[in-house]
Formats: sequence, C-alpha cells, structure tokens
Amino acid sequence: MKARQRIILSILLVNLLLAAFAMGQSRREINFPDILGYKTLKCDLHMHTVFSDGSVWPPVRVDEAFREGLDVISITDHIEYQPHKEDVPTNHGRSHELAVSRARERNILLIRGAEFTRETPPGHFNAIFLNDVNSLAVEHLLEGIKIANKQKAFVFWNHPGWKPEHKGWFDFHTTLYENKLMHGIEVVNGGSYYPEAHQWCLEKNLTMMSNSDVHQPLTRLETSPENHRSITLVFARERSIDAVKEALVQGRTTVWFKDQLIGRKKYLDAIFKGAVEIGKPYNKYKDTIWVEIKNSSDVDIDLEKAGKLGPGKLTLPANTTTLLKTGTGAEEEDEAPAQIELSYNARNFLIAPGKGLPVILTIHLN
Amino acid sequence: MKARQRIILSILLVNLLLAAFAMGQSRREINFPDILGYKTLKCDLHMHTVFSDGSVWPPVRVDEAFREGLDVISITDHIEYQPHKEDVPTNHGRSHELAVSRARERNILLIRGAEFTRETPPGHFNAIFLNDVNSLAVEHLLEGIKIANKQKAFVFWNHPGWKPEHKGWFDFHTTLYENKLMHGIEVVNGGSYYPEAHQWCLEKNLTMMSNSDVHQPLTRLETSPENHRSITLVFARERSIDAVKEALVQGRTTVWFKDQLIGRKKYLDAIFKGAVEIGKPYNKYKDTIWVEIKNSSDVDIDLEKAGKLGPGKLTLPANTTTLLKTGTGAEEEDEAPAQIELSYNARNFLIAPGKGLPVILTIHLN
Amino acid sequence: MKARQRIILSILLVNLLLAAFAMGQSRREINFPDILGYKTLKCDLHMHTVFSDGSVWPPVRVDEAFREGLDVISITDHIEYQPHKEDVPTNHGRSHELAVSRARERNILLIRGAEFTRETPPGHFNAIFLNDVNSLAVEHLLEGIKIANKQKAFVFWNHPGWKPEHKGWFDFHTTLYENKLMHGIEVVNGGSYYPEAHQWCLEKNLTMMSNSDVHQPLTRLETSPENHRSITLVFARERSIDAVKEALVQGRTTVWFKDQLIGRKKYLDAIFKGAVEIGKPYNKYKDTIWVEIKNSSDVDIDLEKAGKLGPGKLTLPANTTTLLKTGTGAEEEDEAPAQIELSYNARNFLIAPGKGLPVILTIHLN
Amino acid sequence: MKARQRIILSILLVNLLLAAFAMGQSRREINFPDILGYKTLKCDLHMHTVFSDGSVWPPVRVDEAFREGLDVISITDHIEYQPHKEDVPTNHGRSHELAVSRARERNILLIRGAEFTRETPPGHFNAIFLNDVNSLAVEHLLEGIKIANKQKAFVFWNHPGWKPEHKGWFDFHTTLYENKLMHGIEVVNGGSYYPEAHQWCLEKNLTMMSNSDVHQPLTRLETSPENHRSITLVFARERSIDAVKEALVQGRTTVWFKDQLIGRKKYLDAIFKGAVEIGKPYNKYKDTIWVEIKNSSDVDIDLEKAGKLGPGKLTLPANTTTLLKTGTGAEEEDEAPAQIELSYNARNFLIAPGKGLPVILTIHLN
Repeated sequence: MKARQRIILSILLVNLLLAAFAMGQSRREINFPDILGYKTLKCDLHMHTVFSDGSVWPPVRVDEAFREGLDVISITDHIEYQPHKEDVPTNHGRSHELAVSRARERNILLIRGAEFTRETPPGHFNAIFLNDVNSLAVEHLLEGIKIANKQKAFVFWNHPGWKPEHKGWFDFHTTLYENKLMHGIEVVNGGSYYPEAHQWCLEKNLTMMSNSDVHQPLTRLETSPENHRSITLVFARERSIDAVKEALVQGRTTVWFKDQLIGRKKYLDAIFKGAVEIGKPYNKYKDTIWVEIKNSSDVDIDLEKAGKLGPGKLTLPANTTTLLKTGTGAEEEDEAPAQIELSYNARNFLIAPGKGLPVILTIHLN
Repeated sequence: MKARQRIILSILLVNLLLAAFAMGQSRREINFPDILGYKTLKCDLHMHTVFSDGSVWPPVRVDEAFREGLDVISITDHIEYQPHKEDVPTNHGRSHELAVSRARERNILLIRGAEFTRETPPGHFNAIFLNDVNSLAVEHLLEGIKIANKQKAFVFWNHPGWKPEHKGWFDFHTTLYENKLMHGIEVVNGGSYYPEAHQWCLEKNLTMMSNSDVHQPLTRLETSPENHRSITLVFARERSIDAVKEALVQGRTTVWFKDQLIGRKKYLDAIFKGAVEIGKPYNKYKDTIWVEIKNSSDVDIDLEKAGKLGPGKLTLPANTTTLLKTGTGAEEEDEAPAQIELSYNARNFLIAPGKGLPVILTIHLN
Repeated sequence: MKARQRIILSILLVNLLLAAFAMGQSRREINFPDILGYKTLKCDLHMHTVFSDGSVWPPVRVDEAFREGLDVISITDHIEYQPHKEDVPTNHGRSHELAVSRARERNILLIRGAEFTRETPPGHFNAIFLNDVNSLAVEHLLEGIKIANKQKAFVFWNHPGWKPEHKGWFDFHTTLYENKLMHGIEVVNGGSYYPEAHQWCLEKNLTMMSNSDVHQPLTRLETSPENHRSITLVFARERSIDAVKEALVQGRTTVWFKDQLIGRKKYLDAIFKGAVEIGKPYNKYKDTIWVEIKNSSDVDIDLEKAGKLGPGKLTLPANTTTLLKTGTGAEEEDEAPAQIELSYNARNFLIAPGKGLPVILTIHLN
Repeated sequence: MKARQRIILSILLVNLLLAAFAMGQSRREINFPDILGYKTLKCDLHMHTVFSDGSVWPPVRVDEAFREGLDVISITDHIEYQPHKEDVPTNHGRSHELAVSRARERNILLIRGAEFTRETPPGHFNAIFLNDVNSLAVEHLLEGIKIANKQKAFVFWNHPGWKPEHKGWFDFHTTLYENKLMHGIEVVNGGSYYPEAHQWCLEKNLTMMSNSDVHQPLTRLETSPENHRSITLVFARERSIDAVKEALVQGRTTVWFKDQLIGRKKYLDAIFKGAVEIGKPYNKYKDTIWVEIKNSSDVDIDLEKAGKLGPGKLTLPANTTTLLKTGTGAEEEDEAPAQIELSYNARNFLIAPGKGLPVILTIHLN
C-alpha cells in the first residue's frame, strides 16, 4: 500500500518537466562527444516552409530545431517550385529573413540556403552560405550553381537515390565535381540512406551530408535515440557559421541516421573513443571478470565479436552503463595479464557501405 | 510523405534500446554531481522480501536496484514480524545471504540490515552494517538496539510520522539519542515526508535518510526525474560499504524525494553548483541579454526571484538547457558591468522545512 | 530469462501501431457516448493559419484534427489582422478553400468561419457557417456581425476573460444578445476556463463553446484523456454540417476541458449514464459486496460520496474497469435489499461554476 | 503562447489516470469481441511463484493479472523442482491456496494447477483443474498424468520446442494422445512460437494454448497491443471456471502472441468479423471511393491484397479507424455496383503455420 502511494506521488511530478519543455524554453541536448579538438555541432541543412512546398511559417523551423537540440539549420526553399505562389508570391530568400530574429533568440545558427530543383537527372542541389538567393533564379542549372559558387556557397547534391529509375552519377555530376562546383552529397535524406552516395563520398572525397528535408510540421517534442531527425554532425573549431562552413568544406562530418553513424573512419573512431568508457573489473571469479562500460552518446552501439575474448554480441545502449562479463584468457588465475583487449566490430558505425568500425575494448585488470 | 516515412523508420528503432534494458544488462545512471571531493552514491536502505512481509524473492531487490541505477541497498526484513512464516520459516539474515551473489554480479553494494518492529511509539528502527541479524531477536527493543550498536551498526528511526495518532519524539528516543544509539531518522519513507523529522535532524545533528520501504515488486524499468524511488544520496569518499558507513555516521547525506532535494545547506549548495552551468550571453539587445543555463542533474530546479534582475520564476528542468532572457540593470548599453548576479531561491532544495536554498546565478557579460 | 525474451519480443511490435498512426491513415476515436438520440461530434471551431497569425498552411489543421479524432473544425482566421500580409496578401476565406479537399479525403467536416478581431472590450467574435467571408470586412463591428447573421451564421464571443483588465459583459454584448446576434460564448478557450462565461450561458441560454484557438502546429499524435484539445462536444442528429449548425443553435453542447466536462445538467447526466456501466456483485462477504464499474468514456470520473454507502472518494479512470467494495447497509446478510443506491457527486462534471453533477450508482444485488 | 499553455495544462492531468492504475483498483480491459455466442476470456494458465522457481509471492500473480486485464490464471508451480526448498519447504498446491482470497477480491478466476517437470523428452506438462496437487508427486510421469486425469484435469504439453536438441513428438506423446490423457499443447510459451505444435494441434484436434510461463515479477502496468503477455483467448459460455474447462476441453481457444492471433479458422474468422466494422463511403470521386474501417480489437490487423480491388497492403491498427481509398472497378460512375468486395489475406491471423486468414471487406456503395 505504501509502495503504491509512492508510485502515485512520483507520477504527480511528470508535470513539471514536460511543462517546461512544452513552454519551449528548455531543450535536451543531443549527446555526442566533441572530438579531435573540434566541437560536434548538430546540423540539419535542408528543410522547407510555405515559401516553397512546405507547410509551416519559417520561425517554426527554428522552434523545432531548438526543441530537438540542434545547433544549426538552413531553410532551403525551392527556387523553381512554389506551389503556393498564388497565395504566397515567390520571394526567394524571404523564408530565411523571417526566421532570423527567432534564431537569434533561440541560439540557433541559421544559414541562408536554397534548393535548385530541376529534372532528375541530374536532380536537386542545395546551396548554402549564400549572399543572394534571388540571383540563383536563372535559366540553366549549371549557371545557377556557378553563381552560388561565386558567392562561396557550399553546394551539395540532394537525395541522389530519390527516383530509382533515374539514379546514378551522370556527366553533369562529373562536370560539377571536376570544376569543384559540388562539395558534398546527401548520403541520407530523411528516412533514406543511399549506399552509392556513401561510396562516392569516400572515393571522391566529398562531404557526407544527412538532412531531414522536412516539409510538414514535426510532431516530436524532443530528439531521442529512438526517434530523431536525420542530421549531420559537423566537427567545427567553434560554434559559429564560419566554422561550420570551414568544417563542411574540409569534409569534417558524420551522418546520424536512425541507429547508425555513417562517416569517415577517423571521425567514427574518435566518437567511439569519446563516448565509451570502460571501468575497472568490479568482480572476479577464477578466470572471469565483470566490468562496467558506459556509453555516454545518443547512439546505441551494436558490437559483434571479432576476436577470442568476450561475448559474441554486445549492445551498449545510449546513455547507459552496460555490464560485461568476460573470460580473461588466462589459464591460471595468477597468470592474468595486466590488461586484456577485446576485438569487436561496431556494426552500426559504418565506415563504408556494409562495413562496421573495428574497435578494441581495453580492460585494465589491476 | 517523405517526412512521414522518416517518422516511421525512426520508430522502428525503439526496439534496441528498450530491449537492452529489458535484458537487464544495462542501466541508466542517476545524474547527480559528485561534490566536495566525495562520490555521490544512490542508496535505498529499507526494503522487504518474502522473509518478512514483502512479496519478492531477495535477488529481485538487487535486479530492481540495478535497473533503476542505484549503488547501494540494504534488505531490512522485520525481526519481529514474519506473516509468511508458516511457509517461509523465520530465518533472520537469510534474505541478505540469498541476494549476495546477485549483488556481486550486478555491482550493487549490499549492506546487511534488519528492521526492529515494535509498537508505535516508539516505532520501528533499522539497523544496518550488522554482523549477526539473529542476535537482535531479543525481548526488549532497547536491548536489541544496544546489541546492534555493539556490532557497530548504523541505527535509524523509520517513518516517524507513520501513525499520526502516535507520532512525536518520546522518552525512548531521547534515551537512544543521548546514548548515541540512534544515528539517523527517515525524513522520507516512500511517498511520505516528515517535516518534524527534518527539523529534528537539523537540531540534533542526526543523519537524514530517505528510503523506499518497498514491499511489492517495483514496476518501473528505470528511474527518471518524474518517477523515481525515494532514496538517500550519500557522499562517500569511495564506492565501498565502508565509505558508505563512514558517510552515514558523519551525516553526509541528502534526500531525493519526488521533485525535491532535502538536506543540509552545504550539500544542497554543492549539488546546485555542480549541476548548474551558466553560459556566456549569446544574444544582446540594448540592456537585455540571453544566456543558456544547463542543469545536468536529475532534478528539475524550481527558482523564484529573490533580487532585482531576472524573471520572476525560472524552472531548470533536469538534464536540459534552459534559455534565460534578462535585463542587465544597466541604463546605458555601454555601462554594462563585467558580470551580473541574479538572486534566486531554489524552492525545491529544502534546507529546512518550508525553506528553499538561496542561490546566485552569476552571468559574465564579457 | 524466458520472461525477458518475451518482453523484448513484445517490444518489437511497438512499431506497427505507431507507424500506422505516423502514416496518417489511422486515428484513435475519442470516446464519448452518443446521447439522447443524438450523435456526439467532437468539434474545434476556432483556429488559425498563415492567412492570419497562425503558423501553418491550412490543410495542416485538417491533418491534426484527423489524427486527434475530431469530427468537425472551422478555420477562423482574423478578418482585421494579417501580420503576414506582406508575404501572404489578405484573402479572407482563402484558408478555408485551401483545406476543403483535404477535409473531404479525411472525412472531417469543415465549416467556413472567421474571427472578428476588434478592441477589447467588446472583444473578439467568431462567425461560422458563412457564405462569404469577405463581406465581413466592414468598418463597424456591429455591422459585420449583422452581415454574418444575415448569412445565418452562428456567432459566438471568444475568450471573454482573455484580458482581465477589460473583462465583463458590456452594453455591446447586451445589444448583440437582445437582438439575437450572438448565440454562444467560449466558456473555454485553449487552456483557460471562464466561470463568468459559464454562468452567462446558463442564465441567458447561450450555447457553451470550447475551442483550441491554436496558432502553432500541434505536436500531439493522438488525443488522450491526459492530453487533449479543448473541444466542444456537439449533440447532432447526424454527422453533417447542417446538423452541427442545428445543434449549436439549440445549445446542444458540452465542453471537454482538461479533466472536466462542463455543460447543462441534462447532457452531463446523459453522458454519465451512457459512459458508466455497473456490473453484478462478483464477491460478497457478510454485508460487504464487490462490483465492477466500467467507464467507457475518455474522461476520468471523479466521484465524492454524498450519501451513506460507498467509499468517500472514487475515481473511475477513462476506458477502464474499476473495482468497488462497499457495505450494503444491511445489518443481517439475509436482509440485503434487492438493490442499493450510492449517492455521489461527479465533481468534474460541472453543471454550474464550482458545482458537480449529482449521480446515483445503482447496484443490483441479486 | 496560448497554445503552449494549453499543452502544459493538459499535461497536468496525466496524474489522475496513472494514479488510479497505480492504486491497483482499476484496469484497462483487453479488447477482443465475444464470438459465436461465447464470452472471450483472457487466460494465462502457466506461471510460477517462490513455491517453485519463481520469484514472487503468490498473490502478486493475481495483482499482475488484474492490472493487465486478464480473466483467468493458473499458478502452476513445478512438482519436481523447488530450488528454494531450503527456505520454502515443498508444499504442493500451497501457492494456489495463498492466492485464493486475492483472486476473489480482484474478480480473477483462479484455477488450481501444477507442472510436471521431467526430462526432455518427453518434457513438461501442465495439469489444471486439479483437486489435489500433492497426489501428483509420484515416481513415474505417466502415472502422475493418469492421476491428474482421474481428477478430470485438463493436461497440456508445455513449450514443446524448448530444447531444440530434444524436440519432436515421441512415443510418450502418442501414448498420452491415444489414451486421451493429453488435451492441448502450448503453441506459444512466453516469447516462443512452435509451428510444429501448431500443426499437431490442427492434425490431432488438440487445444491450442499460449501462456506466459512467467517466473520474475512483471514490470508492465497494463497490457497493450504493443506489449502484452502471451495469453490464450478462451471462448466460454460464461465467465466461470467450469465454463473455461468446458471450452478448453472442446478446443475453443485462440492464441494471442505478439502481433498475431493463432487459431482455428472459424474462431479467427469470427474475431475478424466481430472486430472490423466498415462504414459507408464518405467521399466519392469518379470511380474512387473513401470509407472508414474500424478495428475495435487489441490486435493490429495486417492485410495483403488477394483480389483485384483495394490497396496492396492495408494495416488496421488496434482500436482505431483507418481510411481506405479504393477504386470500385466500375468503368462508368453510374455503373457502380450496389456493393464491392475486397479480397484480402489477414497475414497475422494464422490459421496454419505460415498461412493467413482469407477475408472479404464488403463495402456497400449506396
């Protein structure tokens, strides 16, 4: 009876926390470690409003980003497509302007952007860090992309696998690539992952991007490991628009997509090392030890054994401590080495399509 | 449409995380800062099993503690009351023994304890850190408590306001107190807070305790700010049973009860300072500034203005960043001081019954 | 171990249900009984879009209504206030037009409406069932309301307690009332309940309304007892726009606000009787009986004893079966009457400000 | 701002509902239609307590059953296995006795049962509706099962695929079957489904069972479509122990396992027809119509097209209304037939291993 009362009373407190979130003044941060001396910024650089084919007023995108713990967004309404123009006359760049003051109040970095929206192939392209969106409304796509580049924009190819019948790398992409007019590709757009794009980024040293491309209002109050936007983690020297640009140009990104991180090996390795902390054994019995492993990131880490020691599979859920029981490999208890190394493959840290990150869990026994 | 697909796909990931929790190998830690050079251990030192009037087998208490992120428990079955004894013959201390190996595997510190269960008044008392539970089964309560003390047990008075018709401080308590046979009081038991007990602890320098006194199985998978056990935070020099005992003897505790922390001013002040981090202003407009405040603890902090600057009320939800907009008090923008101090009262950090902790939020303007 | 596997596997199914909701093709209905030969329709007749000061494109309001299980909505953009008009030129009635086809596909009844938005007092008024919204854009409010009435609109006073400094019943309201130009009042607007308005509706026989007045996108996926829109239950002879109008004109409404129903006694009484079903005693012991009570509505019913028999307080949570243990009042078991009647006050069924609905729970003993 | 306040206020109501559940006096019913003139009772006929290798005191099993909306349980502690017997001396049938009064107060039908626990093969068997559990403690399994049968027990084979290396139908099972000593098989035990057992039940006309076999405390507060016990739906002429027995003997059961119903075609067909209600078309356009389909059961229904009309896949989530848009097959609008029939396969209503239930959705067009 007393136990039940306790449950009830503690339930009474749900209010405060949820209420504060609902008030829109608080947000839960997304947890990924800063790595290699850089800040890890959470970015969504592709989204729409009523100024093209989206269904929200621009500041809503800032509110959503704040609520979900993002650092950086770019509103990238279509240049060539305004289905609402009868009611919202075409005004390139206006959605950005209307969101600026909300972004300032919410501490969201807002990058001026737009989406080139032509036939597929060659498909759609985003240009961000623009000075003048209107100037991109020209007849030929290549010309528009050149103008964007003159404005020192960062240009990336959107959802390259969107229309399966037209997907592939075409001459147009080669032209952009060889003239350094295209700097990245969406490896992920919304709920879709494009392995070819992943491979192209690796081979051609293009920046890997992941964006929501959201059109409707978002119904989440908060980002969580189980339910989050597709975003790009950008490793920037500071939290500023200039630093985001520099990082994108240099390819310092990782994609957070569903339960996966997708990126270059050095970044995934650094995130793994920054997120995972292994304790000292807290229990020993003969040649068996028990240790705690903390994963302080927002991604569940899915490990598969690649060596001799340790369990066959090991999941380290986000923001938790997991118990690991393993043999030490020693035949006699007093022969236990100073440390043991467990080789695993982090299957959901993709360093290439279908290829997980090899990791070592080092346990100090003394 | 693409947005909807994304939602669906991200929902598909709920599985992994919950599954790992359900498997019982992972736990979310309870977030309170270590303070004043001590580790902050989460302790529930009062609970029951089928060996008295509880309804679970002893290792269940370890599993529950692990799942909810506790560090320390004590199973304290009644010495004088075994309603199930027809089926589970009286065997003092047996519930502890049956839980020992599970505790070792789960890295839970398990303290041997028992509950004296006599008429109210004088009421019930827990003795923990016992060597021999059986020896406490004697005719007179005072004798039993003396035996516990000879075993260097830590003795505390349970739920002192349990039976309102018999509550109060009686001669028996004075005897215990003056002879240093009683060292703490449950300021909180389950869903009940006893302000008189809070006051007695302050006046008589007794240790403040908070425990669940759980009898039924717990149905929570995880402790959260909104739904958690009543526990005692113990500030110990290390994570060991000896260090817990030392801390309890020296009164280094704070009570976590619903949305409140209850304790001595120095501990609450240290928790506040360890949990709250104030950023630099990220936006300024005339004499108004905007800053971010992080609360990295599991308690929502409820602030009420006590000075001239800042909003009248300010809630810092657990594990979130909250935006604060405040005037600087400067009449001219170029007269802004190097820093401003906002005086608040943390209403749910109780330093005495009905009395919140005074705090200062210092914001560096340059 | 097997138990754990089971938990995990069942968790794997969360997907399907949530996914179907997210796909936007399914909705959970709101549960209130049809009463007195009428259908109980769930209506929100006050909301905004980018065509006045809202922040969504009009079809979003239909999607939200569908998701939350509503039957009827009216988009009521301000006539006199278009803060976005620089970008979305004033076009009265356009938001309705843009939502029509979505409403048809989602089986939502969409009523053409608008909001008169003048100084307070006299305040704001909604007119719904309009033929021509543009015609309302005239200089004087009274004239506009007369035009609406010529179109046989249903006119109601919005959020009458919105600005506390200007609240009250003014001559203007008397003019409207005496000339039958105003037919209802919002007793509830969003999160606010206005007891004065409740009283005025009772005294003057005006229709009680409750609406969301939503401006931002809604973040709920589904309406639930704990988290729902403020809506008006309309008791209509069929599910059609004409029948909604007839019911509103005749005052056949009840307000669903947080955990309360607010309305005329006859409707609340009928809802109570339609929602609550009392079983036969399933257990008897001496003069004590146990029965099950089902509440098949979406409101938790909060009962307080008003007679001799039954527990002092009794909560019947929404969509659940609650166990009731009560004495029969018989002194001898064989003297038990054929039925007993428990008098209660349904405290959250408000028949007047601060006044709950008296109810009888009749239990047949044989 | 007003919208936000509304969210907050509605959140404040979470309390009442959850609190009432937590108080243990209310339960949400499991929704499956009564069929073919029978009541659909929700049964779990296999579970354990501290009297064998479970970890709860017997009345806990009643509390859990009540909370999750069950009607019938049987506590079936092992006859040959009491790992806790040093502390809880062997006492067959005692767990039932200790739960009887709680069952009476909670309106749970409690059936006296036990589990024979011998080597695999032949495996474990439950006997329920026993008079005397002690009498089953004999040397030979066959003898024990005969004694159970003399007590007119219903005997079923438990988890027949539990140990993959020993699974299969052995001579012992033939002996039981041919002598009518075994009457059912667990097609589902906890999280495991055994297709062979499903097939045996069909071929040999044995009763299909599904039980939890729970050993640990359950951490759910409520059964839901996404997270529920494996239970047996029993179609009984009334809610009584005798009627449950009669129904089991006559094979009137269906298994509810994760997102599936498994059973004989006539029962699955009746459940489908009882659960699914198709409205009249609410929208027509040329040869396309839109209708609402209600699924008032607790199972999500997963349909795959088997005819010419309708969408390829169609999910009807539990307790929701789903919109269906379909062509009528008419070439001219005025040739539309009086009704159309959509042929589907209900993939998660298993009438045999891997074989869904064929269903027709009939839509009346006029």
